[in-house]
Amino acid sequence: MIEIERKFLVTSTAFMDQAFVNNRIVQGYISTDPDRTVRIRIKGEKGFITIKGKGSESGLSRFEWEKEIPLLEAQQLLQLCEKGSIDKTRFEVKIGAHVFEIDVFYGENQGLVMAEIELQSEVEAFEKPDWLGEEVTGDVRYYNAYLSKNPFLQW
Amino acid sequence: MIEIERKFLVTSTAFMDQAFVNNRIVQGYISTDPDRTVRIRIKGEKGFITIKGKGSESGLSRFEWEKEIPLLEAQQLLQLCEKGSIDKTRFEVKIGAHVFEIDVFYGENQGLVMAEIELQSEVEAFEKPDWLGEEVTGDVRYYNAYLSKNPFLQW
Repeated sequence: MIEIERKFLVTSTAFMDQAFVNNRIVQGYISTDPDRTVRIRIKGEKGFITIKGKGSESGLSRFEWEKEIPLLEAQQLLQLCEKGSIDKTRFEVKIGAHVFEIDVFYGENQGLVMAEIELQSEVEAFEKPDWLGEEVTGDVRYYNAYLSKNPFLQW
Repeated sequence: MIEIERKFLVTSTAFMDQAFVNNRIVQGYISTDPDRTVRIRIKGEKGFITIKGKGSESGLSRFEWEKEIPLLEAQQLLQLCEKGSIDKTRFEVKIGAHVFEIDVFYGENQGLVMAEIELQSEVEAFEKPDWLGEEVTGDVRYYNAYLSKNPFLQW
């Protein structure tokens, strides 16, 4: 239940050509406490509830628990969420042995594009595509929970 | 997903003879925000996650969403909870057409015994047993989430 991820800004839209799938995601937060975040997500026609713990010192590892839930229940739970939701499209791009998930944000977070890669260990190597920019792993400002309250356009 | 409940203090242990089942319950809170409480519960050998909304003006009705989850996951999520957990035994007693759930609290909430009854409407009538005391429906001090942070022995 520990997820190891690295997160980067994205410098161009070149990744779009390489994407094998994309999904609209709308999500809100029942709790934005960074030590125990509770997220409700609708991705395409599916609902999810996700609880994340505090990031490790390196920022790479974080407890994560997720369950798929019926779409209708996710819609009702979204209405219970704190103010501020996240609306984005997620593109998935295979680079070498890994899949990058690239989020293009809308609304109050328009202009922000971030890529994430999930790893099996904190030291695992991976191929870096040209469109990969500055690493922001562990920077809480780039947590979606933070962005839901402090959107990118207000930075 | 709306739960209608009334809650009472309990004046004697007479209910114990009438109980058809009892279960030890340990629970903690990922969020104690009364507008969107997130509870992790272990009841006997089963795990649950429950999200509750704000109480209605009368205090009788409240949004409630609950899912059973594997015991191991509930144990791991309990460790992520805020400080302050609730430990109690729940007795279930059938009175007429209804089931009362009576919670006998331990630890920092020792001495507190509360009964709850779930109703189909806010005006539904029900039989009141002798051991039923003062009604505390809607009194947030008697919410388990409140008790986890402000235990009964400190009142």
